[in-house]
Amino acid sequence: MNVYADNAATTRVSEAALEAMLPCFVENYGNPSSPHHIGQKAAQILLAARQTMAEHLGAEASEILFTSGGSEADNQAIITAAVIGARKGKKHIISTKIEHHAVLHALNKLEKEGYEITLLDVYEDGIVRLSDLEAAIRPDTALVTIMYANNEIGTIQPIKEIGALCREKGVIFHTDAVQAAGHLPINVKEQNIDMLSLSAHKFHGPKGAGVFFCRKGIPITSIIEGGAQERGKRAGTENLPAIVGMAAAFKAACEQMPDAAARVQAMRDKLIDGILQLPEVILNGDREKRLPGNVNVSVKGIEGESLLLMLDQAGICASSGSACTSGSLDPSHVLLAIGLTHEVAHGSLRLSLSEYNNDAEIDYILSTLPPIVERLRSMSPVWKKMKEGK
Amino acid sequence: MNVYADNAATTRVSEAALEAMLPCFVENYGNPSSPHHIGQKAAQILLAARQTMAEHLGAEASEILFTSGGSEADNQAIITAAVIGARKGKKHIISTKIEHHAVLHALNKLEKEGYEITLLDVYEDGIVRLSDLEAAIRPDTALVTIMYANNEIGTIQPIKEIGALCREKGVIFHTDAVQAAGHLPINVKEQNIDMLSLSAHKFHGPKGAGVFFCRKGIPITSIIEGGAQERGKRAGTENLPAIVGMAAAFKAACEQMPDAAARVQAMRDKLIDGILQLPEVILNGDREKRLPGNVNVSVKGIEGESLLLMLDQAGICASSGSACTSGSLDPSHVLLAIGLTHEVAHGSLRLSLSEYNNDAEIDYILSTLPPIVERLRSMSPVWKKMKEGK
Repeated sequence: MNVYADNAATTRVSEAALEAMLPCFVENYGNPSSPHHIGQKAAQILLAARQTMAEHLGAEASEILFTSGGSEADNQAIITAAVIGARKGKKHIISTKIEHHAVLHALNKLEKEGYEITLLDVYEDGIVRLSDLEAAIRPDTALVTIMYANNEIGTIQPIKEIGALCREKGVIFHTDAVQAAGHLPINVKEQNIDMLSLSAHKFHGPKGAGVFFCRKGIPITSIIEGGAQERGKRAGTENLPAIVGMAAAFKAACEQMPDAAARVQAMRDKLIDGILQLPEVILNGDREKRLPGNVNVSVKGIEGESLLLMLDQAGICASSGSACTSGSLDPSHVLLAIGLTHEVAHGSLRLSLSEYNNDAEIDYILSTLPPIVERLRSMSPVWKKMKEGK
Repeated sequence: MNVYADNAATTRVSEAALEAMLPCFVENYGNPSSPHHIGQKAAQILLAARQTMAEHLGAEASEILFTSGGSEADNQAIITAAVIGARKGKKHIISTKIEHHAVLHALNKLEKEGYEITLLDVYEDGIVRLSDLEAAIRPDTALVTIMYANNEIGTIQPIKEIGALCREKGVIFHTDAVQAAGHLPINVKEQNIDMLSLSAHKFHGPKGAGVFFCRKGIPITSIIEGGAQERGKRAGTENLPAIVGMAAAFKAACEQMPDAAARVQAMRDKLIDGILQLPEVILNGDREKRLPGNVNVSVKGIEGESLLLMLDQAGICASSGSACTSGSLDPSHVLLAIGLTHEVAHGSLRLSLSEYNNDAEIDYILSTLPPIVERLRSMSPVWKKMKEGK
């Protein structure tokens, strides 16, 4: 059996999204900036996609900027807020220790340019405390950027309350919603969100398209200069097929969310319950406040890499952390932030489900995993030492 | 009859490119950074696309950075050279007056940050003079960025000689080859090119993919921070379908180039000869040193916008300048740079052909255009004044 349980890394493009995209390659292939009928047809399609995205985010179409993906959107949001802050002499930015590297590395760059960065702790449950945030906000704070849901451990932050606090303090609030979009409800107005990033390929849309939502009135800084596309704030011919596919996938995800989330969550819970029956396995991240599809466990006494390899041989695609940092031998910064030792963090396993998974696949994972864990532990000197120490 | 003669704005995706892309949406949809078999399959496909692009550019695979398109590549090239220059106290950059806005606006931004920009003249024929370049290069020149072929008037610059001069002077040479790629031969080694930008959707590849070629040894600056994709120099999950489509389209374009260019050039010449039979029409840009598919004329006494509108009503998609600046009422900076008055520049028409056009379409344009021009001139006070003045 083949089981794709790495939907936090990327997802298969839905039939609906692909169907929406296809005409944009060979029929409606115009450049939306061209004034002739083929161009204007493309412009209409682009506008419709913008309206769809806006509608399902509780935003206005003019507040939607299309980017090449979530990383670009994160970078642009952070630079936008940094530029606004600098003009007012505000060069302090607050974030958390568990952000995606698109946020953390963009902040590192600003730090080198003289900005001061405060990274909030997230405690054992992976959740930011509002009181910590309140204490960290200073008169010179230009931006609070806190992800909606974490890509590794799936924990969901109290976005609405964070947004309310930021608004009260007059600080711009950005949320990296790359993992949340299409999986958790988003309403930028109700949730007090000033800026938001999302990426199509995390909800069965195509790679190559994302959104940078920026509340009207906030002056945007370009990171790609050139033509007047996207109101002059993001140059380059719009990736119309991918944008259209994103809109179709997002619409479907939002409309089907209550049912799909319940179904995925039931699979997740069955998987968590089953895996936790193994000895010396812990669940990483809060049990309740987590993405419907996220399972992240540490299997003590083994190496996550070997576990992944053996699962892969059994047809199960999983992850040890974020795909973006694979190839690195450093333990996950997220797992360290919730207090795991290097050793335990190295034995972590992420299984991320979507509505494309089914119960039979969950059963297959639950029957495949235990013998693999047992075999790896039988060869593990760390496990031997652990057992002897008891 | 419908004639798409705006291939410099964007092109229809070829069957070969689309066929190459489709499996990447629903089958090989993995994240190339994921270590499992679906991810590794994606990584293999990505590597093959990189090798294809490298091979047809005379580069090495490790020198190919995938971007979201030409504008991003242009921006990254310029920032890369600017950062290198600044470290050595070199803050002078040379370019031309007819570059694409992705280059000009990126340079404007640097100018505000304290860089000094010299824009070379291109004379009436739209071609840079090597002697002007040589005179402009200074000890503090960090970069020469000159486009391979112009997007409006199609003129081809002496890239190889420019590259040789830059190499002799120890200055980094970047060329925006967005219009040239797939239409003119490129060999970065033979042409002494240090950095090059191209975009897939200008040669029947998909929107959303481009290449930033950067010669090995030149340290690249990221403009999108985050994951370790593209050797840590361009974060964000790779847009695999678009990249694969780009490679397929580029391979086909390069392999078919001699034949296709001859065929397209014959159509171009027929079109130019036919249009120039109209009174008071001039060809913009050099007659010989121009892209195989580019026709750009000024029809004196009329407004280009009205001409476009009436051509569009007759089913002919054309352009008055670059699609990226449409919506603007300013006359083209390119046409002003080759010495046209505002009035004449406003009467310009660009017809850009590709191998998807055919002789019947050329005949249709040549039979459709004259009565439209006549009609517009009959209503034009400018034309009346011109005739009376004679």
